[in-house]
Formats: sequence, C-alpha cells, structure tokens
Amino acid sequence: MMNEQTVVNAARKMFGGRAGGRVRVGIGDDAAVVRIGRTDVVLTIDSVVEGVDFDFRYFTWTDVGFKAVSAAVSDLYACGARPCAILVSVGLPAGTRASDTRALMSGLRDAARVYGAKIVGGDTSASPRLFVDVCAVGEIAGSFKSRSGAKLGDWIFLSGPVGASRAALGLFQKKLRVSPALRGAHCRPIAAASDGIRLAREPRVTAMMDVSDGLLIDLARMCAASRVSAGIFPSRVPVLQATRDAFRRLRRDPVQEAMVGGEDYVLLFCVRPPVPDGLAGRYSCIGQILPRRRGVQTPLYNMERRSGIRHPAGIMVKGFLHRF
Amino acid sequence: MMNEQTVVNAARKMFGGRAGGRVRVGIGDDAAVVRIGRTDVVLTIDSVVEGVDFDFRYFTWTDVGFKAVSAAVSDLYACGARPCAILVSVGLPAGTRASDTRALMSGLRDAARVYGAKIVGGDTSASPRLFVDVCAVGEIAGSFKSRSGAKLGDWIFLSGPVGASRAALGLFQKKLRVSPALRGAHCRPIAAASDGIRLAREPRVTAMMDVSDGLLIDLARMCAASRVSAGIFPSRVPVLQATRDAFRRLRRDPVQEAMVGGEDYVLLFCVRPPVPDGLAGRYSCIGQILPRRRGVQTPLYNMERRSGIRHPAGIMVKGFLHRF
Repeated sequence: MMNEQTVVNAARKMFGGRAGGRVRVGIGDDAAVVRIGRTDVVLTIDSVVEGVDFDFRYFTWTDVGFKAVSAAVSDLYACGARPCAILVSVGLPAGTRASDTRALMSGLRDAARVYGAKIVGGDTSASPRLFVDVCAVGEIAGSFKSRSGAKLGDWIFLSGPVGASRAALGLFQKKLRVSPALRGAHCRPIAAASDGIRLAREPRVTAMMDVSDGLLIDLARMCAASRVSAGIFPSRVPVLQATRDAFRRLRRDPVQEAMVGGEDYVLLFCVRPPVPDGLAGRYSCIGQILPRRRGVQTPLYNMERRSGIRHPAGIMVKGFLHRF
Repeated sequence: MMNEQTVVNAARKMFGGRAGGRVRVGIGDDAAVVRIGRTDVVLTIDSVVEGVDFDFRYFTWTDVGFKAVSAAVSDLYACGARPCAILVSVGLPAGTRASDTRALMSGLRDAARVYGAKIVGGDTSASPRLFVDVCAVGEIAGSFKSRSGAKLGDWIFLSGPVGASRAALGLFQKKLRVSPALRGAHCRPIAAASDGIRLAREPRVTAMMDVSDGLLIDLARMCAASRVSAGIFPSRVPVLQATRDAFRRLRRDPVQEAMVGGEDYVLLFCVRPPVPDGLAGRYSCIGQILPRRRGVQTPLYNMERRSGIRHPAGIMVKGFLHRF
C-alpha cells in the first residue's frame, strides 16, 4: 500500500508533473492550470469515501454532499482561483433510498450556491460504499498562487482558526455533546472563498495552499515544495475558544491538537515583507520562513514521514518543540 | 434505489439542467459546456467501479486505467470535442500493491497519450473496492454536437461496429477462449477520436452521442432528447465477423445481442439529407428518424423502462421486431 504522497510522487513521475505546452501547472499543487483556447482553466478533483472521510453516525447525506463540494472548491481558492463549474461522480450502495440520494444532491447544490458555482454534470455508479468525487473547474481570480513560492524571510499566515473539525470529531467519538458551531466545522465546512480571492489579488502573497490534512503536515508540504523550512509560534496559531474548550474536555492539549487537526479549509499563505496593513490586521501571522535545513532530527520527523515527504523540510516549532 | 436515468432526471431538477449564464450545455448530454474566460470548455466525468464495471478475473490493472480514460474521453468526442486535460480520482483498497498502483497509472498514461491529453491532477483515497473516476476536459473541435438535435427524416449512422465488448464478456463468463481483438474491445476499448473530430466539423450532423449503454438504449435516449422516434434496419447494424462468431458460439442471436451490447464507444449520429459522400462511404447508415409516437407499445418498451426513460420514444425496429 502506498500512502498518498507516494502515489503523488509516482504519478508525477509517470504522467510528467512538469508544466509544458498547454499545461501551466501540473501534478503536485492544490490544483492544475491548463490553457484551453485563450483561457487558463484551473482544475481539481477530490473524493470523499464513506468510512474513510466521513462516518454516517455523525453525517447526514446532505452534509456529505456539502462537505464534498467545500473540500474541492477549497483547492481552487487555495490557488487563487474562483470556481465556475462542478462535476460530481457518485458511487451509491445498493439499496440507497431515493430520499437519501436527493438529500445528497441538496447538499451538493447548497454548497455550490454558497460558492457561486453551477453543477453541470456528473455520473452515478453502484458501489459497495458511498463515494462522492467532485471535480471543480475555475478561473484565476488574480494571479495563480502556488505552494512552491515561499521565500526566506516571508511571514506565514493563516486565514482563520484551525482545529475545530478535529475537536468535533473527538467529541463525536467520545459521544460527548457537540455544539452546532463545532458540528458545522466538521460536517459542513465552508471554504475560504472571499479570502482566497482577496489573496489572489495581493502581489506580496508568495505561496498559498489550504489546510486540509493539518497545519503541520501541510506546512511541511509547502516547505518541501518551496525548498525552505519554517518556524512557528504555537501561541499565535488561531484556535477558537469552543475548540480549546472541547480539547480540554477531551484532556488533550488544544494548540498541539489544533496544529495537527485536518479539514480546516482555511488558507495557509506566505507574505513577502513588508506585510500590507490590510493583511496584517485581518489575518493571523503564525511564523516565518527559515533557510532550508536537511535531515533535521525533531520530534516532528515522524509526522513528516507520515506525510510522505522523504527529505523533511525541518519545521521548527518555537517554544513548543524546541529540542532542535 | 434509483436507476441512472432517474438520478439524472432528479439531478436536472435539483441543479437546473437548463443552460444559462456561463453554462452553455448543462446536465443531460454526454458532456457539459461552460464558458470560462473567453473559451467554451467541455467537461465530463465518468467512473468505473470494481465488480460493477469491470472484473479482475478478466482485467489487468493497466486495462482498468486504460478503459477508464477511454470511457471518459469518449463522452467528449461524442459532443465534437477534443480532450486537453484529464484528472483522475482513485479509491484504492487496503493492501493494494505499489506495482498494481503503477500498472493502473501506466494504463491511464497510455490511454491519455492515445488521445493526446495530459493527466494534470488527481486524488487518491482508501476504498473497500477499487474505483477510478476520470474527469476529461476539452475544447470544441468544430461545433458542439448535442444528442437532442435529431430531426424527422435524418439518417442514423454508426461510426463503427457494435457488440464486440458484449461478445467478449459472454466468452469470458463461459470460460471460452477470447481472441486478442475481442479482448481488446472489452478491456482496452479505444474511443472514436478521429471520427468525433471529423463529425464535429460536419454541419449536416444534427445530433451525436456515444454508444456506451447499448445501441438501442442510447438511441432511445437520443430520441427522447430530440422528441422523435427512430426506425432501425437490423441487417445494416455493423457487427464484426469475430463478434458474430462469438455470439454463435454462445448460441445467441448476433445482431440482437450487438444492438443491446454496451461499451462499444462508437459514435451514433444523425445526418440531415442529402448525406455527404464522405460520410455515406465511410460510416454505416442503420436507419432513419421518424415522427414522435407517444406511449407506443412494443417489445422494446421494457428496455426503455430499464433505461429510465418515462415516455418511451417508440423505437421501431424494422424487419426485426415489427409487432408495432
């Protein structure tokens, strides 16, 4: 079994990840960019699978549809693109009720409306477990933001708080009460649409991606793609009070948990100093890009291994994990 | 459980199948057309699921990848579009070997090369059974060909022979020998690329779609979309000698079987008379578009029900099923 990053690396080798010809951005970023006619079209695909990405004990069918669209369009916003059209491929288990199928579709539709995109096509198949594959197609809203543009000295920002989805999942699993806000963060996340479009237009933003697998793993990926490392101030990582309270109820460290929690769908981005006032006031600065360090031994090494990155980018987490 | 056509109908209702704004062609045709920037982008998504669309007793992992791409790009050619980029989402069962994943990717790559398209992105997930979702993105090669443009008096054509895939499957299931040509038709079908592009440029072609679920079901869908009916001359339906021989070995009627066999990936299209010589000489004329008949009772009615079309288009099959 290959982990996701190994598959991505193999795919890049097999399919040719390099840009060239009509391919402006190929495999490896949040989304691809392809020149079609006279337009740069931004493309991404994202699947959610029952039992892997969601659990029907906590999710309604409508939630599943909503989350699948949010996860896919988040990859477009992460590149500075705006979604235009959505295609959906659904694998339905035998015996799926028509009302469940309609509930799934209503979730897809509601989410598409939030992002101003139209669902224009799809496919259905039988499948032992429900899967929903969403392909989101967009156009660049300002300039394309890659994850590989971070430079030494850039400040690292988050567009919003992290950890709420993981906190909700922890409460669900322990059968504890989950507030509507935390439930929403896990079951009906909303992608950072207006932030993505604003940041696409900001020339000082040098790199951007969304936080879908957890801040530390995703930052490690950004560092690897940009050939830099990063220093994080954990105290500056934005975590909602409700999320802190939830992790305390679960007897876990709120900040540490928030930094490894996935599916936050906020944007992680780097800004070349000086940081414009409009960004500094609105978003949370959590650290700075540092020079590349190879083979650094830190307690985060295993996490980077789990993320499939062969040469750890050496994330240094100041004040938190400083046995560096 | 809803059948595919019922899901499509529900989706059209839920998402709005009508064209409008940037959506030039919405749900219900082989592919959608969306205006992005200054370009009409053609989009389709198609999934194959283990145990539903293919069987590992007959398929290699490479075959699965190849067929998944062919099935998706066939929907583009069916609209008169040329594929530019491909995204792939794969659900891999636990314990999938790295060599199998690479074989799957090589099939995807080989097929993409055949069609001159680049694989630019994807997603992987865990899944109890293998699924491969392919999103194909293209540009219009001449003019967009819908399935809803067939008019009374148009001649009905097929771009190539039908039934070979079904014949191969029949032999596989009876554990009989399958020739390489028939095996190829089932496991590594090749979409009608050059035919699609040629026909996209032919103004007399009024309607087009690919034959993926069987000639009769797909023709019934074209008739329903165009609000017409059709008469077919079974003796003119092109069936390869190898296919005829296979069905005879299986003690089934070759032409009847070929007309209901799916996954042929040839193009079904209508031509407004007079038919240009270049088309008449190259392709098989199998019948003619007739006036719409409502609620006609024919032995084909059940098949149309199976295809989910509520108001049967009344396909009349001359000389074959003429209890009309």
